[in-house]
Amino acid sequence: MGSLAQPKPQQATWAVAPATDADWAGIWEIFHDVVQGQDTYAYAPDTTEADAKNMWMGAGKYGTGAQAFVVKDGGKVVGTFSLRANHFGQGSHVANCAYMVHKNYRGQGVARSLCQFSMEEAARRGFKSMQFNYVVSTNVGAVKLWEAMGFKIIGISPKSFRHATLGYVDIYIMHRFLDGVAL
Amino acid sequence: MGSLAQPKPQQATWAVAPATDADWAGIWEIFHDVVQGQDTYAYAPDTTEADAKNMWMGAGKYGTGAQAFVVKDGGKVVGTFSLRANHFGQGSHVANCAYMVHKNYRGQGVARSLCQFSMEEAARRGFKSMQFNYVVSTNVGAVKLWEAMGFKIIGISPKSFRHATLGYVDIYIMHRFLDGVAL
Repeated sequence: MGSLAQPKPQQATWAVAPATDADWAGIWEIFHDVVQGQDTYAYAPDTTEADAKNMWMGAGKYGTGAQAFVVKDGGKVVGTFSLRANHFGQGSHVANCAYMVHKNYRGQGVARSLCQFSMEEAARRGFKSMQFNYVVSTNVGAVKLWEAMGFKIIGISPKSFRHATLGYVDIYIMHRFLDGVAL
Repeated sequence: MGSLAQPKPQQATWAVAPATDADWAGIWEIFHDVVQGQDTYAYAPDTTEADAKNMWMGAGKYGTGAQAFVVKDGGKVVGTFSLRANHFGQGSHVANCAYMVHKNYRGQGVARSLCQFSMEEAARRGFKSMQFNYVVSTNVGAVKLWEAMGFKIIGISPKSFRHATLGYVDIYIMHRFLDGVAL
């Protein structure tokens, strides 16, 4: 889109909808670009499209149970999240979610809209809380946003991420109970 | 074995070896029994044998990359661990391990021998550290043993485990660097 894009103001609310197969090409464009950075997600930069689709959208017989959602600008996918149970069995009441935003649409409230919707969707599905297992500590913008969205750092895994430019850096584990939950 | 078993003294060292397909029946006996308790692992009590084998031994086309090891008493499997990478890609230098001991062989040093071997095996494979993502906080014996083996609690996930008798209880995330590692 480049200079043709009409950035929305910082705190705009973006509509979020379940991803369809037709959205995958747009999600893959974002996913593939994000993982090249090796600075925010553990996915290897050479992750194949098939593996990415399975992890993000839960496709295939041995799917991950993940379901993807998207934000679009016109017909273009500009942000996405993947929602799943963080653990099976006795831990299946905790949700897990991962978010990615197109590089041309950052700082425009897309991640915030995705996160807000993901918490509401998780609550609709009966989850009690949400945990991020793998927030790269040097991804300061993300950490600040998740804290603003009510998440707390509940753990620090030392030097558990091989950052492309910074070397081994810490991983934060972040968590919050969903609205209205009493455990 | 019952009364015929000859318990070894508390701190005995047990020999650990890679599991073969022939060991699976013995591993499954332990696995199935342990998960019935719903008090130490998240695996659902009705986990199928096929799913358990895939998760524990990495069997099947869509395996988990896990490899299993066993301790035997005579021909009987009395303890087992499953070793894998805790994360893919940029986090693949962190190992993850899970341990189970036959109910008739607890308190005899089996878990300690399994853990010691697992750390050595992880180091041989090039892992830098080991993380347990899912130690049930009320499993006091395990927490004490892992602490004695050099693991530290690096995070507490609140009420993330539905305990069979205690309700929602905390999960500890435990971690240690492997011997000789400098990051």
